Amino acid sequence: MKAIILFGHGARDSRWREPFDRLVDLWRAQHSGVLVELAFLEMMQPSLEEAVTSLVGKGATDIAIVPVFFGQGGHLRNDFPVLLQNCRGKFQNISLSATPAVGEDSAVLQAIVDFGARAL
Amino acid sequence: MKAIILFGHGARDSRWREPFDRLVDLWRAQHSGVLVELAFLEMMQPSLEEAVTSLVGKGATDIAIVPVFFGQGGHLRNDFPVLLQNCRGKFQNISLSATPAVGEDSAVLQAIVDFGARAL
Repeated sequence: MKAIILFGHGARDSRWREPFDRLVDLWRAQHSGVLVELAFLEMMQPSLEEAVTSLVGKGATDIAIVPVFFGQGGHLRNDFPVLLQNCRGKFQNISLSATPAVGEDSAVLQAIVDFGARAL
Repeated sequence: MKAIILFGHGARDSRWREPFDRLVDLWRAQHSGVLVELAFLEMMQPSLEEAVTSLVGKGATDIAIVPVFFGQGGHLRNDFPVLLQNCRGKFQNISLSATPAVGEDSAVLQAIVDFGARAL
């Protein structure tokens, strides 16, 4: 069974995660056949490994991880690959793939430009 | 003259800013009549005040600041208002407005969901 993890940075302020919760709601409304979980690098739960564990427990066998970050800096170039490799070591029968950061996507960037234009 | 500042967090790794540079390119291609500058909270230049100073020097009188953040945590709730207030104090004849974070926009969130769906 396919699943997706939306992987964000995390923050001390719990209100920071509100857009991430909305992403999950949107996903479930539009892609109900694909399990979804959030995961966070730091300061929020669940961790990437906890999210993978949860999805595997629900029957997921093929999990795509989408980094919900704008830029690809140290977190995605250094920290994330280590976490991903740890998960692959722990779940050797599960396919774990990762996309580039959402900020690499031209449609995401265009939506940001359009949002700015509406603010003028 | 209207202008926009795309305000991001900043990071140590210079490659992190690549999507922000693409946002500027998209903006200039699509909204050539509205000046645009990037600004960063930390670890990258220019600062918000430096970006405002630059735009005012180019004739901007009405500047909208768009926080290119997903969530509204401590950076946007605590740090950003102080920076904005400082700029308003320094540039009292300039209109400085701020939008919510781009992660509050449903079209931005939808673009992220669509990006994830294409990854499956």
